Amino acid sequence: MAIVLGDNRYGKAGVRLVRVDRGEAWHRITDLTVDVALSGELTAVHLSGDNAHVLPTDTQKNTVYAFAADGVGEVEEFGLRLARHFVATQPAIGRAVVTLAEYEWDRIEGADGPAPHSFSRSGRYTRTARVVHDAAAGTEVVSGLRGLTVLNTTDSEFVGYAVDRYTTLPETKDRILATDIDARWRHRGTDGDWAASFAAVRRALLAAFAGTYSRSLQQTLYAMGRQVLAERDELVEVRLSLPNRHHYLVDLAPFGRDNPNAVFLAGDRPYGLVEGTVRRDDAPAALVEL
Amino acid sequence: MAIVLGDNRYGKAGVRLVRVDRGEAWHRITDLTVDVALSGELTAVHLSGDNAHVLPTDTQKNTVYAFAADGVGEVEEFGLRLARHFVATQPAIGRAVVTLAEYEWDRIEGADGPAPHSFSRSGRYTRTARVVHDAAAGTEVVSGLRGLTVLNTTDSEFVGYAVDRYTTLPETKDRILATDIDARWRHRGTDGDWAASFAAVRRALLAAFAGTYSRSLQQTLYAMGRQVLAERDELVEVRLSLPNRHHYLVDLAPFGRDNPNAVFLAGDRPYGLVEGTVRRDDAPAALVEL
Amino acid sequence: MAIVLGDNRYGKAGVRLVRVDRGEAWHRITDLTVDVALSGELTAVHLSGDNAHVLPTDTQKNTVYAFAADGVGEVEEFGLRLARHFVATQPAIGRAVVTLAEYEWDRIEGADGPAPHSFSRSGRYTRTARVVHDAAAGTEVVSGLRGLTVLNTTDSEFVGYAVDRYTTLPETKDRILATDIDARWRHRGTDGDWAASFAAVRRALLAAFAGTYSRSLQQTLYAMGRQVLAERDELVEVRLSLPNRHHYLVDLAPFGRDNPNAVFLAGDRPYGLVEGTVRRDDAPAALVEL
Amino acid sequence: MAIVLGDNRYGKAGVRLVRVDRGEAWHRITDLTVDVALSGELTAVHLSGDNAHVLPTDTQKNTVYAFAADGVGEVEEFGLRLARHFVATQPAIGRAVVTLAEYEWDRIEGADGPAPHSFSRSGRYTRTARVVHDAAAGTEVVSGLRGLTVLNTTDSEFVGYAVDRYTTLPETKDRILATDIDARWRHRGTDGDWAASFAAVRRALLAAFAGTYSRSLQQTLYAMGRQVLAERDELVEVRLSLPNRHHYLVDLAPFGRDNPNAVFLAGDRPYGLVEGTVRRDDAPAALVEL
Repeated sequence: MAIVLGDNRYGKAGVRLVRVDRGEAWHRITDLTVDVALSGELTAVHLSGDNAHVLPTDTQKNTVYAFAADGVGEVEEFGLRLARHFVATQPAIGRAVVTLAEYEWDRIEGADGPAPHSFSRSGRYTRTARVVHDAAAGTEVVSGLRGLTVLNTTDSEFVGYAVDRYTTLPETKDRILATDIDARWRHRGTDGDWAASFAAVRRALLAAFAGTYSRSLQQTLYAMGRQVLAERDELVEVRLSLPNRHHYLVDLAPFGRDNPNAVFLAGDRPYGLVEGTVRRDDAPAALVEL
Repeated sequence: MAIVLGDNRYGKAGVRLVRVDRGEAWHRITDLTVDVALSGELTAVHLSGDNAHVLPTDTQKNTVYAFAADGVGEVEEFGLRLARHFVATQPAIGRAVVTLAEYEWDRIEGADGPAPHSFSRSGRYTRTARVVHDAAAGTEVVSGLRGLTVLNTTDSEFVGYAVDRYTTLPETKDRILATDIDARWRHRGTDGDWAASFAAVRRALLAAFAGTYSRSLQQTLYAMGRQVLAERDELVEVRLSLPNRHHYLVDLAPFGRDNPNAVFLAGDRPYGLVEGTVRRDDAPAALVEL
Repeated sequence: MAIVLGDNRYGKAGVRLVRVDRGEAWHRITDLTVDVALSGELTAVHLSGDNAHVLPTDTQKNTVYAFAADGVGEVEEFGLRLARHFVATQPAIGRAVVTLAEYEWDRIEGADGPAPHSFSRSGRYTRTARVVHDAAAGTEVVSGLRGLTVLNTTDSEFVGYAVDRYTTLPETKDRILATDIDARWRHRGTDGDWAASFAAVRRALLAAFAGTYSRSLQQTLYAMGRQVLAERDELVEVRLSLPNRHHYLVDLAPFGRDNPNAVFLAGDRPYGLVEGTVRRDDAPAALVEL
Repeated sequence: MAIVLGDNRYGKAGVRLVRVDRGEAWHRITDLTVDVALSGELTAVHLSGDNAHVLPTDTQKNTVYAFAADGVGEVEEFGLRLARHFVATQPAIGRAVVTLAEYEWDRIEGADGPAPHSFSRSGRYTRTARVVHDAAAGTEVVSGLRGLTVLNTTDSEFVGYAVDRYTTLPETKDRILATDIDARWRHRGTDGDWAASFAAVRRALLAAFAGTYSRSLQQTLYAMGRQVLAERDELVEVRLSLPNRHHYLVDLAPFGRDNPNAVFLAGDRPYGLVEGTVRRDDAPAALVEL
């Protein structure tokens, strides 16, 4: 009945890194937030404050910036380099998890065409990656995106659901379906064309959202995940977290007007939340839950 | 030495309105947040709680939705319709200020081309408008945008500034210049091609930001405002609020690496803040400060 | 018809300062965010990028930290020291505005009584101050608070308001009244017992909110401002910005339950917004609008 | 190699509930946000959009409000009532997870003493609870709090850590230690004096934070968790997530001043993040990870 230390990890979060690559004529920028989390033989520091096994989070931050001196490349690659480094060089560290968020920038259109070193931030979504490197269990790469808000104005219905004494919702054959896509997908391996894979998944998610006649947001979720796996052999599992951003048809009858699915109130809270994974039935077990 | 009521106003804020226009093949959406603020003969409600002159904020909200039944159009137009309505129909209300924020959506690219009724939200910036309609003083339209984050990787220096005993900043001939553009511009009149005007101002702001060799963010601010007025006769004043989003060159020397303006830490706080207006010298006085 | 520079200012915002005062037994902490804004002869920097008159915002930040070496004291005092310094030492700067936010901390109760150097942050409200020092026009101190959320469960009604064709709101004799107090108050002079004054105003605002039978939020606003001025001779004007945080009575009839003002949905948006000032009729004109 | 549905759940999130209890003289309020997540036999809805097993999230929301008609009580109790209801009444639902956040309110001090029906919101922390009820696996109650920001001005050091080629951090024998406590603790059973238990855990967390001479934030984390389990037999596991809110000593030497641990810059990002669990070695396995 003793009290013991359970699972634990530590690291530096929120490392803001901007890298500029200066070609002769055209500059490019990479804009990241990086989080590092390490775990391993860390009982001593918890129980007695012995820091001998602790690589300070300040050093982790330095490492991120120092590694960027050699270029960043795709977020998955950068995460792999960092995660492998921490495990390879710190004997006490058995596992490193590096989580990255990338903010995309568009080139500004100047007075005389595309500007060579001027950019405006695209707020459409944030690209993400998570790399787990474990000395014993191996390496795992997850890519993703979040904050991609989408909306169908029609081809969405919601009927035939379970009814109980607390039901008041009327069925509808035509509603707005809107959500903020938060998606992560697990790769089979640890190399590949990360940029092409990301672009294809993003396109597949959007096309499936737009192309599915929706009887429920769950059905749309599954269609999106299935489409990604159907198109991309390099992936084994997709997780989607989809808030149902309700749009309420406003009753204009008191003002003598009908409302043929034209005027909506966009609600904040409460919202539905549908979460699910779609996977290949032979997908290897995940090191860390998607 | 009596205690008296001073300036006051009231209204409904945060009215979330989505309007769907259903063409035969293609749908369009308009996504707004509307704030209404009314002022006038409101002493009685403050001093004694007599609400006879108070049009409830709930009614203001209803009015926004009811007016949307006839279409929304450009934000400036919708603001004008609403502001004029409140002053025209409420004898006690001398002034209405309607402030609008519009979130733009892009059409989703589906599997077979542009999707007819599917959209993804563009997060590049928020378009804004503010309409003041005053029974005595007239009508004023201000357009704007906020949240447009831009960055130049070079062509920015900062030298020759005032020095005192608290100065530690070294001069620099080459730095990153980054800011979140928050801009408002005042129109000469109350009609025009609002959409074309907005698009042109946005292009001018971006082109001036990209095309100006910057000796200070103030100089860039003035260049942006001047460019807008030079191009657009229908405008008389531009206000810009530009946070200086500092990017700090990381010292990689301790790790045996140089850093030729390649690796930066993007700072959150503190930040510089430069605010200013550029105007025509014959601009009529504003009803409400930009 | 020339294009000219209008009003402008610049400075450092978001300077995060924590000062520890170490008594023999008991420590105290002061936790501030400071914003500085300077204006004056700044045409050259805007038009030609000549920075000779520009005290860098980095230097302003240094000044804040350097001044804290001599202690911070009340926010109004610290703001006065800083604002006067910038105007006194920079010939081109005619006006300095220093805006401060203070986060309060409570002493932690340890195992053996109050802990001598351990604190937990009070999130009840943020104390604010704004000092304007102008070489020509004089000095002005405004104190304030924001984020003080309050709620009356009864003694609030809303009846007798204006009705039009868009009215659907029923009258109510008993509702929840809730708001987030954002208040600022202008001092007559530039010295005084700032801490005592702040504490008294906060008490007066709360007591007036609690003690007023409310026929409208406007009436409550006026009662709060009047109470502050009635109690505090050192103040000449109070400004209140009060969002009306609507609480909607939930209709439980479909579930066979009545709802005697017991179960409410707390709404986010839209919300009412009531803003107003209460002042002495002989209050001197403000340098900067409250 | 088929594509299949993996783990999934759905529900209503962000249900904002305020309950007023009206005693003869004194009112009390309970202010909650409730999230419901259900899982079970939901393959049909994902694969074909058959909603027969789907209890709409709108109905879940109605249920929350309807149950509040009988009173709310402690968050753990309210969560238990709701979770058990969904599993008991929906044959397809095997598991319900109800997550609750409670915002505490203090009674306002009026002109004549404590006000009977006026409150101000305490922003010190948010109390949380999570109830899992599973038809097969049983029931589990987790309590918690988040947003409790604490700071020690001394009795914190950081020395003796691992050093590599990226190390630049100097050792320190005296630093500020600050964090935002996010804590969850798992109960052995499903009844008890929830209010007393919560109050005791909060006191224990604070006392352990204040009373531990800290050689690392990990050591403080473990001390806090151990203290909770040592005092509270009804608990079997504690999880803490502690961001290390860095306070940087400002170098005042350029201004001719020393800085004897008095003036600090409070940083935002990056921050350290230490996460860990402390548990009894005979703790039963958790239904859902803490």
